[in-house]
Amino acid sequence: MNLLLLDADQHMGQGRYRLTERQRDHVRHILKLENGAQCRAGLLNGPMGKLVLVDANKTNELDGLFTAEYDPPAPLPLSLLLALPRPKMLKRMLIDATSLGVKRIVLLNSWKVDKSYWQTPELKAHQLQWKMRLGLEQARDTQMPEVLLAHRFKPFVEDQLAEWLRGDCYVAHPGPYPRLPAGRTAETTLALGPEGGWTDYEIDMLVQHGFQCGHFGQRILRAETALPAITAHIMTMP
Amino acid sequence: MNLLLLDADQHMGQGRYRLTERQRDHVRHILKLENGAQCRAGLLNGPMGKLVLVDANKTNELDGLFTAEYDPPAPLPLSLLLALPRPKMLKRMLIDATSLGVKRIVLLNSWKVDKSYWQTPELKAHQLQWKMRLGLEQARDTQMPEVLLAHRFKPFVEDQLAEWLRGDCYVAHPGPYPRLPAGRTAETTLALGPEGGWTDYEIDMLVQHGFQCGHFGQRILRAETALPAITAHIMTMP
Repeated sequence: MNLLLLDADQHMGQGRYRLTERQRDHVRHILKLENGAQCRAGLLNGPMGKLVLVDANKTNELDGLFTAEYDPPAPLPLSLLLALPRPKMLKRMLIDATSLGVKRIVLLNSWKVDKSYWQTPELKAHQLQWKMRLGLEQARDTQMPEVLLAHRFKPFVEDQLAEWLRGDCYVAHPGPYPRLPAGRTAETTLALGPEGGWTDYEIDMLVQHGFQCGHFGQRILRAETALPAITAHIMTMP
Repeated sequence: MNLLLLDADQHMGQGRYRLTERQRDHVRHILKLENGAQCRAGLLNGPMGKLVLVDANKTNELDGLFTAEYDPPAPLPLSLLLALPRPKMLKRMLIDATSLGVKRIVLLNSWKVDKSYWQTPELKAHQLQWKMRLGLEQARDTQMPEVLLAHRFKPFVEDQLAEWLRGDCYVAHPGPYPRLPAGRTAETTLALGPEGGWTDYEIDMLVQHGFQCGHFGQRILRAETALPAITAHIMTMP
């Protein structure tokens, strides 16, 4: 936890925030801070700054006075179209994407996504938010990403994709294609397939909707390796 | 497993290899191949090609005839100086580094590496090899990386580093430095610190030995996210 990320419902009035149990333990036992000390904090979807610890006048509680000082880092202008990974990997990939600064994610169905993946409780909104909160705390950022669940590939691509995508669109796919571009700073959309890759039909559909295929070298990467690697290759990190 | 990686001790003579139990299960139950069918295989530290499945004339065994056809992908010309990660992350990071094509790794001590990390049985040679084998099978590669364990920072940096490093040397470090370079194809050495970063003393020592500090954007990444992200940023993937 490199940042205390404060929710509106922690606000006690007059810039005073009550820390959650997890935040309190971190401040007391990891940072080993006493009352009067200050640490880095940020308001969810708001500014970052410092928090000066004050006594909550209540056993087992800890408050802090927040002062806004600067803006969170600029968003990474990358929109991610991600074939739904298996539940075990979903957590890691959402934390990674969030800590890299991605703000727009679609979790999309694909032929090679096991149907059971859609049944996991990990996809409930509060579970998704929790994982991305861990990514924000790691990266020192406050802007929660938006996540859209697209349970059906074809209806999403035909009816919603055109409105959702931004900038030039690339799909990572092995084959006789140009290499994926590198170091972009403009708005970009990137589609990352499931283990086993997109089907030919899915590639055709994406290409029809404006995506360009690009390869990322000869080696085949696990989806959870490909996500940080290709994101950091295709974009310049703010 | 995208490749059956064959060891010398699996060789039965005349190009015939006996599959391990794990390979046999993969061929029979995942690939669902019958005798006479062929699949992708490679010799450890040798060529890649095809394996035609043949009857082993023995219950519960499976053999294949290997034909060499092409070379493994070119190594990534990146030498990695990695602060020893916690055991849970070591597996993931070795698989990631191997699947990205890294062939030279030093696992190095650092002030912020917990001493207990050096006690894990995961650091035994066969355990390290096993993790990297998983990375090779994933990436379709046959060249096993070399790993060196450096239990003490100062003696390693003073006595061994100069001989070990190759090409331009960079250390990823937040601060008022230039951005890490991108898309290199020449020999490069990259130092990645522990959670919490290198100490000032360690940075000074690395700089004295020819390393340049470079940042990778404002966000702070977990070590296991930074490894694939910075590797894919700094190098062009073969």
